Amino acid sequence: MASIESEANRNHYAAIVANAGKFTSPRAMNDFNDTSWTALTGEPGGVDYIEVDAGGVPALWIVPKDADERRVLFYAHGGGFLGGSIYTHRKLVGHLAKAVGCRALSYDYPLAHQAKHPAQLEAAMAAWNWLIDQGFDTKHIAIAGDSCGAVLTYGVLQRLRAQKRPLPAATLIISGWFDMALTGASYETNREKDPAFARESVDWLVTNFIGERDRLDPEVSALYADLSGFPPVFLQAGADETLVDESRMFAERAGQAGVETRLDVFDGMLHSFQMMAGRAPEADDAVRRFAAWVRPKLGLPDAGDHVADNKAA
Amino acid sequence: MASIESEANRNHYAAIVANAGKFTSPRAMNDFNDTSWTALTGEPGGVDYIEVDAGGVPALWIVPKDADERRVLFYAHGGGFLGGSIYTHRKLVGHLAKAVGCRALSYDYPLAHQAKHPAQLEAAMAAWNWLIDQGFDTKHIAIAGDSCGAVLTYGVLQRLRAQKRPLPAATLIISGWFDMALTGASYETNREKDPAFARESVDWLVTNFIGERDRLDPEVSALYADLSGFPPVFLQAGADETLVDESRMFAERAGQAGVETRLDVFDGMLHSFQMMAGRAPEADDAVRRFAAWVRPKLGLPDAGDHVADNKAA
Repeated sequence: MASIESEANRNHYAAIVANAGKFTSPRAMNDFNDTSWTALTGEPGGVDYIEVDAGGVPALWIVPKDADERRVLFYAHGGGFLGGSIYTHRKLVGHLAKAVGCRALSYDYPLAHQAKHPAQLEAAMAAWNWLIDQGFDTKHIAIAGDSCGAVLTYGVLQRLRAQKRPLPAATLIISGWFDMALTGASYETNREKDPAFARESVDWLVTNFIGERDRLDPEVSALYADLSGFPPVFLQAGADETLVDESRMFAERAGQAGVETRLDVFDGMLHSFQMMAGRAPEADDAVRRFAAWVRPKLGLPDAGDHVADNKAA
Repeated sequence: MASIESEANRNHYAAIVANAGKFTSPRAMNDFNDTSWTALTGEPGGVDYIEVDAGGVPALWIVPKDADERRVLFYAHGGGFLGGSIYTHRKLVGHLAKAVGCRALSYDYPLAHQAKHPAQLEAAMAAWNWLIDQGFDTKHIAIAGDSCGAVLTYGVLQRLRAQKRPLPAATLIISGWFDMALTGASYETNREKDPAFARESVDWLVTNFIGERDRLDPEVSALYADLSGFPPVFLQAGADETLVDESRMFAERAGQAGVETRLDVFDGMLHSFQMMAGRAPEADDAVRRFAAWVRPKLGLPDAGDHVADNKAA
């Protein structure tokens, strides 16, 4: 059964729907996300935050105390290309990095009201190139994102492969958005359970992001991409979210392509419930699972103190 | 008339009262403050946050990009010694530091459930001593705090004077708590306007902080301190808060003691409304006024670009 604490995520999404009429400007949406969304997350504590210009892209170094200095989580925040920022996800990425025992680079990109696809992917590539220019080794980098961050994560992987460049060592996806054609049956089966992401709403987000472009373009819908040769991936999703079948379908395709694939679906949870890290036990559990999975892939010892320490201060 | 945005601060205090029965643990209070209080503040943006151990005291360097490296705002957060932290006030202090164009050192101290007075003041002194040990010149330091942060701010000043040590160049107090004897008439005149700080509630906070100790001790009630020789002070308070008369009485006593004193009372505002910086125009105005006042006192040029830039990203 879902914890009492985890209701906060559901309440957030219910508030989005209840207040939708007030989001008359990007600023209003942004303020709501600052107030409601990022407030879900407990302060990880013991983490520093340093803004950088990552090749023209606003980004945030998220540096846990005593973290390995050469290992990096390269992180694309979610928000449906409608909202979200390096600030809304500051604490979530702080929890992830602290649990892994590495630093993270969380980057921003234009939202859809500022520029349409592929401007977002170009920003992601610029941030990636900047990271590599800093001397980090792809063997020591995990690439990650939540929700629409999956679009950018797999967009970067496809472009790197096309350019015959080295790929990162591992991939983490939280509640990934993989299919702009919206073919997942869970849009119907979870319709009553998920207060925010009705098919009609997500359809609007697709058009907001790509206009009338091809929804099957693998750079926007990774479900239709060639996944062969891609790094191991750990997918996490909530059993009650309308997007959960996108993770299931993607996991199946990744496995068929020979990618080491793990999918954990969390009972009773909604979209991006990991935002409750530091507050809800399900979110802390999800963060610990990711850390334990990824540490050996980055050449770090099996999860020990860092993971055990991943509690709110 | 108060801005629509500024209602957020009132709503926060109303929520404290409405939810008081739920604050059954320090953790619950802390989570509420994280969720409701710090959420009032917009992200300043362009500010880095680096945790430090300041002589045994957890503290946060708050470093705006391009800020003067030798000027420091030494900051004591509020929260009635019941809640609040370097995290709840991260963004507020970020706005203040960004507007001034200096860095800030925001420090924590034990809350009253962890230790009674004078443990808080001893933490403040340890953080101050650490700051001086870093080589900063008191002529380049402004000392500041909100609410119960005033207790620590004037406690530090009294101890420094007693030790015949140099004092900082200026003082900023936001909604200062100066009088644990609660003699201000505004506890009555603003009783209907201030949802959170009824005399009975503040009386409880006093006992929580000092037990049965003397409420007229100048180290807990700066209203009764000898203020002669203290640095210039800029006091800000909300006209509708029950504590406003403490600022008025303190300003009168500071002026009588020969201290350069400025008191700005903001119409229609409640306690610590500056927490709405980046969102409500009254808060941004208050931050700008402080920056313009303090910059020359720190040997910085008159406020220019830094102040104009103090808008939420």
